[in-house]
Amino acid sequence: MIKIGIYGYGNLGRGVESEIQKNNDMELVAIFTRRDPSTLKTNSDAPVISASEVNEWKDKIDVMILCGGSATDLPVQAPELAKSFNTIDSFDTHAKVPEQFANVNASASESSHTSIISVGWDPGLFSLNRLYAESVLPNGNTYTFWGKGVSQGHSDAIRRIAGVKDARQYTIPVEESIERVRNGENPELTTRQKHTRECFVVAEEGADLARIEREIKEMPNYFDEYDTTVHFISEEELKANHSKLPHGGFVIRSGETGNGNKEIIEYSLKLDSNPEFTSSTLLAYARACCRMNKEGNFGAKTVFDVPPRYLSALSDDEIRAKLL
Amino acid sequence: MIKIGIYGYGNLGRGVESEIQKNNDMELVAIFTRRDPSTLKTNSDAPVISASEVNEWKDKIDVMILCGGSATDLPVQAPELAKSFNTIDSFDTHAKVPEQFANVNASASESSHTSIISVGWDPGLFSLNRLYAESVLPNGNTYTFWGKGVSQGHSDAIRRIAGVKDARQYTIPVEESIERVRNGENPELTTRQKHTRECFVVAEEGADLARIEREIKEMPNYFDEYDTTVHFISEEELKANHSKLPHGGFVIRSGETGNGNKEIIEYSLKLDSNPEFTSSTLLAYARACCRMNKEGNFGAKTVFDVPPRYLSALSDDEIRAKLL
Repeated sequence: MIKIGIYGYGNLGRGVESEIQKNNDMELVAIFTRRDPSTLKTNSDAPVISASEVNEWKDKIDVMILCGGSATDLPVQAPELAKSFNTIDSFDTHAKVPEQFANVNASASESSHTSIISVGWDPGLFSLNRLYAESVLPNGNTYTFWGKGVSQGHSDAIRRIAGVKDARQYTIPVEESIERVRNGENPELTTRQKHTRECFVVAEEGADLARIEREIKEMPNYFDEYDTTVHFISEEELKANHSKLPHGGFVIRSGETGNGNKEIIEYSLKLDSNPEFTSSTLLAYARACCRMNKEGNFGAKTVFDVPPRYLSALSDDEIRAKLL
Repeated sequence: MIKIGIYGYGNLGRGVESEIQKNNDMELVAIFTRRDPSTLKTNSDAPVISASEVNEWKDKIDVMILCGGSATDLPVQAPELAKSFNTIDSFDTHAKVPEQFANVNASASESSHTSIISVGWDPGLFSLNRLYAESVLPNGNTYTFWGKGVSQGHSDAIRRIAGVKDARQYTIPVEESIERVRNGENPELTTRQKHTRECFVVAEEGADLARIEREIKEMPNYFDEYDTTVHFISEEELKANHSKLPHGGFVIRSGETGNGNKEIIEYSLKLDSNPEFTSSTLLAYARACCRMNKEGNFGAKTVFDVPPRYLSALSDDEIRAKLL
């Protein structure tokens, strides 16, 4: 049995706790939190431990799954925990990947641990598909579309506007643009042509709705380059119709071989629960992490470094017989 | 530069010859044929060499791409050539993979070569997607659909019927079944519910068309379990409208996380040229083969064993910065 630890108990931590039960070769050993452990209501029998005591669990955990946030938690936690544990994280601040990789690599290499960073679906499975598709079709263009799905970052940005009580933002890919890509037209697409944004906002009583709508639509980086629609709804409606966290998207490579032959590779995800699916992916990579560590393959890794066979609970003979 | 040899010059060999030009880090060194080399009309400057002289090229070729057929060529050629070369092949007789793997592994291990077998899109990219999808979604069902595309095996089978001059058979996935899978219905599908078969047949003058049609539709294994339509057309029409070799298909994993959340992973290919796309995939794996051999990773391998980063011509820093 692979002994799993969960570090951080938000949406992702709960997802790992839920999905671990679907993997017969894994067991949840402990959940670590920076909050007072006695205040945590979990969904399993695993003990809840204060993050300050994590090093006492050094020899009881095969892989620690880091479920903190990319912005401030993982840059600190990942290099620190890699000194004592094999780790998996879902670091997704693209611009800072080289720095994060270097920091985690230094810790993990020195302590003979294996740490796979930036695991999930994007970065993660989408990254893999970009790499495979560009490698097998060197002459072509790659397009990534996200959605339809809830963007937590954009929802948070709306919540920070004065007069907003709660909000949910959906990122929606422009179907017409996807069709053009699928048809091998290789279009050049602007930000606006790729995605639209739809916002469901609960305003505080008496708030100036016109101002809120304007502030959303003009918000730099988040909304100004997109066609955005804003709906004001009641708190009850938000809870009833927008409490799930669906997501998904498309990676499409449109290439050419020979003398003008079009070849289209498309990978897509349609997810009812973004955090549960991400968690399920983290667990498959936890299996791989454990195996690579046992083989002496230390340091920081990404999904690009992991031979696919390490992800499966089946033996090499079985995967060749059943899946090849 | 990676020095590539082509062994066998049919559709696949010509595809490798064409696609090699799209990879800046590769060069075609020689084409080997069992025919009289002087009779071969090729599309490049590479010398055409008799297969009997192949061992004289032992030190001049980094990876030999085997372009013979799976039925009779590869079971003999792959273990034999692995004694002298790193090899890539597209062996696709599923039932005989364990035997082929063992034979090639014995040769390649003893001679310190690396041989990746069963490369292409199915087996190959589809196999990878089955493995990734089942690993990240352990609770679910996987479906593979093929087409719309030309099946060479089925076309050949029709050509063997008395009175048939030429034929082309298209395998067509049943759209309604794909939709049910995409919707997460997890249907149990019979052979007939997954694919239909459409045949374009050029009959010899005076042949009994009704008998030919009946013999096609009742042919065991090939057609009897499918809804098959047969069109008799002229030789000119076959040449004009059915001389390309398009193909493609879908791998769909329909799984569940948490408490009834549906998660759908779909991978699809839409290919104008099956042999050119397959060739392009073989070349990406030739790059990987070369690297694995340099690292001392000898023996037989499949796509499951190859870390994705080995497929790319970009450096590890570049793929993390650009594709992660």
